[in-house]
Amino acid sequence: MSSQPNHPTLLIPGPIEFDDAVLHSMSHYSESHVGAPFVATFGETLSMLRKLFQTTDPSSQPFVISGSGTLGWDLVAANLAEPGDDVLVLHTGYFADSFADCFETYGAKATQLKAPIGSRPQLPEIEKALKEKKYKLLTVTHVDTSTGVLSELKALSELVHRVSPETLVIVDGVCSVGCEEIEFDKWQLDGVITASQKAIGCPAGLSISMFSGRAVKTFQARKTPPGSYFASFKNWLPIMQNYEAKKASYFATPSPQLIHALHTSLTQILSKPLAERFATHKATSQKIKKAVTDLGLKQLASDPADQANGMTAIYLPETVKAPELLPNLLKKGVIFAGGLHKEIAAKYIRFGHMGVSVTDSKRDDIDRAIQALQNGLSEAGYQKA
Amino acid sequence: MSSQPNHPTLLIPGPIEFDDAVLHSMSHYSESHVGAPFVATFGETLSMLRKLFQTTDPSSQPFVISGSGTLGWDLVAANLAEPGDDVLVLHTGYFADSFADCFETYGAKATQLKAPIGSRPQLPEIEKALKEKKYKLLTVTHVDTSTGVLSELKALSELVHRVSPETLVIVDGVCSVGCEEIEFDKWQLDGVITASQKAIGCPAGLSISMFSGRAVKTFQARKTPPGSYFASFKNWLPIMQNYEAKKASYFATPSPQLIHALHTSLTQILSKPLAERFATHKATSQKIKKAVTDLGLKQLASDPADQANGMTAIYLPETVKAPELLPNLLKKGVIFAGGLHKEIAAKYIRFGHMGVSVTDSKRDDIDRAIQALQNGLSEAGYQKA
Ligand SMILES: Cc1ncc(COP(=O)(O)O)c(C=O)c1O
Ligand SMILES: Cc1ncc(COP(=O)(O)O)c(C=O)c1O
Repeated sequence: MSSQPNHPTLLIPGPIEFDDAVLHSMSHYSESHVGAPFVATFGETLSMLRKLFQTTDPSSQPFVISGSGTLGWDLVAANLAEPGDDVLVLHTGYFADSFADCFETYGAKATQLKAPIGSRPQLPEIEKALKEKKYKLLTVTHVDTSTGVLSELKALSELVHRVSPETLVIVDGVCSVGCEEIEFDKWQLDGVITASQKAIGCPAGLSISMFSGRAVKTFQARKTPPGSYFASFKNWLPIMQNYEAKKASYFATPSPQLIHALHTSLTQILSKPLAERFATHKATSQKIKKAVTDLGLKQLASDPADQANGMTAIYLPETVKAPELLPNLLKKGVIFAGGLHKEIAAKYIRFGHMGVSVTDSKRDDIDRAIQALQNGLSEAGYQKA
Repeated sequence: MSSQPNHPTLLIPGPIEFDDAVLHSMSHYSESHVGAPFVATFGETLSMLRKLFQTTDPSSQPFVISGSGTLGWDLVAANLAEPGDDVLVLHTGYFADSFADCFETYGAKATQLKAPIGSRPQLPEIEKALKEKKYKLLTVTHVDTSTGVLSELKALSELVHRVSPETLVIVDGVCSVGCEEIEFDKWQLDGVITASQKAIGCPAGLSISMFSGRAVKTFQARKTPPGSYFASFKNWLPIMQNYEAKKASYFATPSPQLIHALHTSLTQILSKPLAERFATHKATSQKIKKAVTDLGLKQLASDPADQANGMTAIYLPETVKAPELLPNLLKKGVIFAGGLHKEIAAKYIRFGHMGVSVTDSKRDDIDRAIQALQNGLSEAGYQKA
């Protein structure tokens, strides 16, 4: 199945389990970051990202920068917002608070539109908010990793384009890119930021993003210089364009080893139709959610239409405590994550189901995890009411 | 010698050749960034950095963040300087211009003290500058990778502490940590920022730094919030302290694979006395510099006291062009770097000699490189005058 030594299966909402070939590409011998072989590898990687995001518009711009998902927030806040700009942050949990904090760091004014835990702001409220004030950007967490809530991007973007056409539509896709359908061009998105370690299936260490030509123009029209140095479009834009054109240039040293791993994971992902990948994630997610319901448990995301396909956030029975259940699951060879939403962190657990654990039919990770959960709960004295 | 496939030997001033064991540690199976095994690995890595920087003062604070050397500038400029603060940047080449640019991004006023190419600002000038204005920080590039100039830190820091004791002494050690002597405590340094891919011998992708208790206090006494989100001490300080105390916590996902590689490279480095490591780098550097002189060639750093021990920047003979010589050296299996200092980039090449190419006695990288340089020059028609 895997040449990796026996180890507990990592089923948290990122980092995820990695394919052997991806891990091994990181042992690539050292290359110059400006030498022709690596420049070609990096250039191909950037071009493959266009396919992953389903964009053929040549004005779209991919970025891959050493960092993590969080750095994507800095990219947005330091380059697309200017001090004093208003930004509307749709809040579905933990990550919107942090993104708002990031905007404030760079001087933008973040207004949060909050929904009850397990839900998401509804289109009519969003429409109302957009009509009340002129927002430079709207941000949405595609999958909120703290609640397992999935936001609907297509209708949202249509709404924004209709009601407030100058507002840029920015997606936090850290927990969605690679497992949820995203049609960058068709849905008229302006920015999707993500990270390597989740559904893309490449070890942590990379901030990965795609911005529209309109977003790049917004950057170019800034009246003030970008608010960050390391996360500056001014510094990175020419570098990304050069790598993709297979020309050497330098701002800060990229990681050849991580880029090789990303090249391998993207090659694997793109070797099959993306629609198939998303359908597989959806089918596996349905199976998990059915098992959870059969166990008599509830999810944070109560409406099935709001449920993510790459993770499930599950309320624990009142009598079962996460600090006892999770170590018992670990003994059974499965790692789940605890709760993250501040208000209810102790009351739920999170099961990540992205990448090879889902798509590699030679793996039995998901079945073992469901089994472990069933046994773990019954060993904790839980019986379905 | 190495289980890596046959490949041209990378002898640029970073990235460098990597040891097999370091590369293989990156294939580690996936772990949770907040699980006990990885928390222990990261914690040990941070503690080992204290040894590498030769600091035993418990108030010193190591940071390891996904990024690169450049991110270290943001750490300094966004956390230790406040908008309007004056900063004195000692200029020995390319990297001081960028560091100054980074300070300006975050609103600090950078004054550059420049030296002729191949030299460094002298102590009396620095003393004069420090007496003229109150500087919050002074920065020095320990080894300027664009010129091969080594700065003397001990006497510099003594001067700053004598003349302007409130000024923080900040070292850009991207091209020196791991190959040049640095005594963080004894020399009373306040910050040394570096990257993984040079003399530390770990693949690119990590910003690595050490700050003094005094620097942390300066941060804590800020009147304005830090200027960066991803590079904020506010966000990272508790995380680094928790990891080192073997406690799980989260701000942004670190890279378990890269941290494993760093853990391996630091373990290797610390398995021998540091003084021996520095002496080996010095001896090899002397041998290379003698070979260069024997060839009748000059270095950018004309004064032997100013010559770095991990790289050599070599003026080409007038008749030899880098765009012809470097590809010929590649054919001979050796990769050198071209010039980087804007004013004279075409006139010189750079030979990096750090890490396993120098310390692993089973490797013949350096001898082959010297031989290739001799042959390449003679094939280009050059004869010593
Ligand atoms: C939705 C979302 N946004 C942003 C982040 C931050 O990414 P990282 O931890 O890679 O910095 C995460 C991480 O889990 C996330 O799930
Ligand atoms: C002296 C010096 N400072 C800073 C940097 C920037 O580091 P990085 O390229 O890893 O971002 C370099 C890179 O070569 C360097 O040599």
